[in-house]
Amino acid sequence: MTRVCCQQLDPVVGDLDGNRRLALSAIAEAVDAGAEVVVLPELVLSGYMFESAQEAARNAISPDHEILREWADLARRHDLIIAGGFAERGDDGKTYNSAAVIDPDGLRAVYRKLHLWDREKLWFEPGAEPPPVLQTRVGRLSVIVCYDAEFPELTRIVALAGTQLLLVPTNWPLMERPDGERPAEVVIAMATARANRMAVACADRTGVERGQAWTGASTIVGADGWVAAEKAGAEVLTLGPVTAEIDLRQALDKRYTELADVFADRRPALYATLAG
Amino acid sequence: MTRVCCQQLDPVVGDLDGNRRLALSAIAEAVDAGAEVVVLPELVLSGYMFESAQEAARNAISPDHEILREWADLARRHDLIIAGGFAERGDDGKTYNSAAVIDPDGLRAVYRKLHLWDREKLWFEPGAEPPPVLQTRVGRLSVIVCYDAEFPELTRIVALAGTQLLLVPTNWPLMERPDGERPAEVVIAMATARANRMAVACADRTGVERGQAWTGASTIVGADGWVAAEKAGAEVLTLGPVTAEIDLRQALDKRYTELADVFADRRPALYATLAG
Repeated sequence: MTRVCCQQLDPVVGDLDGNRRLALSAIAEAVDAGAEVVVLPELVLSGYMFESAQEAARNAISPDHEILREWADLARRHDLIIAGGFAERGDDGKTYNSAAVIDPDGLRAVYRKLHLWDREKLWFEPGAEPPPVLQTRVGRLSVIVCYDAEFPELTRIVALAGTQLLLVPTNWPLMERPDGERPAEVVIAMATARANRMAVACADRTGVERGQAWTGASTIVGADGWVAAEKAGAEVLTLGPVTAEIDLRQALDKRYTELADVFADRRPALYATLAG
Repeated sequence: MTRVCCQQLDPVVGDLDGNRRLALSAIAEAVDAGAEVVVLPELVLSGYMFESAQEAARNAISPDHEILREWADLARRHDLIIAGGFAERGDDGKTYNSAAVIDPDGLRAVYRKLHLWDREKLWFEPGAEPPPVLQTRVGRLSVIVCYDAEFPELTRIVALAGTQLLLVPTNWPLMERPDGERPAEVVIAMATARANRMAVACADRTGVERGQAWTGASTIVGADGWVAAEKAGAEVLTLGPVTAEIDLRQALDKRYTELADVFADRRPALYATLAG
C-alpha cells in the first residue's frame, strides 16, 4: 500500500515567501503523517487570480529556484515524492502553468499545463509536451494540472503509458451544483480512475482569492474508481490533508474478468474517424 | 425541451413473444407519459444470459423482423424516437449485439456493439463500424450499447460528430459498490455528459436472470453533467420509466465561459503519442 496525501491549501496571490512557508509546512505535516506521496495544489507558490500576464510573469520562478531545491531536500531526507504547481519562467521567457514532480533523486519532471482554463489563456503559454510518466519507488506516476483532467483523451494516453497513480494539482473554481452532489471535477476523477483502472489524487485549494471562491474538494480515488478519501468541499476554509492508503498494484491489472480488459478491449482503429 | 424516457425492464431470456409484448407495452406507457424519445434496454427482445453462441443465434432476429416494424409503426403514429437492443442475425450469418434507432421515418440505424463485455465475446461478433449520428426532429442523436460507454475515446468521437443526446441501451451486471455511491456506470455517464456537454440516457434492466442480478439504475444525465432522473438501483425489481425533460440546445454550446470551450480547448496533436 502507498500512503498518498493531498494537501488542501490557501496560498496568497503574489506572496512567494508566505506560500513557500505554507507549502513547506504542508509537506512537513504530510511527512509526520507518514505520507509517501504528497500532492500540493496548482500554482501553490504564486496564487492564481492574476490581474495580468505581467503579474503572472512577476510571480514565476524557474525550475532551478531554491524553493524546488528545498522540496528536493525534503524528498531525499524523507524518501518522499512531491508534486506541486508553480508559475514557471521558461528559458524562452514565457510563463507556464507548471507542476514539478520531485522524488529522492531530485527534480524528475516539470510538466507544463496543456489545457489552459479561461483567463489562464491571457496569463500563460500552454505546454507543448505530453505529461511525463515516471518510474518511482512506489510505481509509475504521472502529473497533469486541473482542467487537463477534463480531457479523457489525455488521461487515457497517460494510463496507456503505464501510469498507476495520476497526480493532479488543481484549483477548482467553485461552481453551483445540485444539493448532495460531489463537484463535477470529482465525478470526472472517479470516472477517469474507473475507465482506466488508475488511481487519481487531486489536491485542490480552498478559500476566496480576489473574489474567486475555490471548491476545496481534494479527493483521492483508488484504481477501482471509488473515493478513498475526500474533503467535502465548502465555501469556508477547509484546510489540510486528505490522506489514503492506495494499492497501486491494482492499477497493473486492467481486467474486470477473465474476458474483459479495459485496455485490450479498446478498438483504436474505430476511434479515429466518424462520419457525422 | 425534449421529453426522454428510459424504460427499465426485465426481459426473459429466449422468450421473444413475451419480450415483444413487454417492449410494446413499455413504449405505449412512455407515449402516454408524453415521451418524445424512448430508450429500451440492451437485448430487450432476446434476454441476455445465454448459455452458448447457439442460444444467442437462436434468439437473433434480422433488422427487417416484424417487431422492429411494429416499433416503426408506433414511432410514426406518435412522432416518436425509439432506441432498443436486440440480438441481430446479420446477412453474414453472424450474431451481433445490436441496437436499433427508429423514428417517424422508420428504421434509421442498426448499430452493432463495438466493445463486447466478458462472455458476450463467446456469443457475439463485435461491430466493425462506429456509432451512427442521426439528425432527428429533436436534435442529433447517437446510440451505443452498455460497455461501449466505458471507452471515453468512443463517446468523445460521437460527441465531436455533433451528438446532443447519446442513447445507451444497457444491461449493467450488479457489482458491489460502497454504501451511498451510485453505480460506477452512472458515474461514467455523468462524466461523459460533463466532459462533452452532451446528454446521456441509459436504459438499464432489472431483476435476476439465470443467477445474474442486474443493477437497475437507468439514468438520464443532462448536457450539464447532472442527473436529471434516475432509478436508485436495487437487487429487487425496479421496473418502469425514468423520465426527464432535457434541453438539448445546451449540447450545442461547448463553452463554459467566453474563454473555455471543451472542444476548442482540445490538443489532439498531443493525444496521439506519449513516451512512457
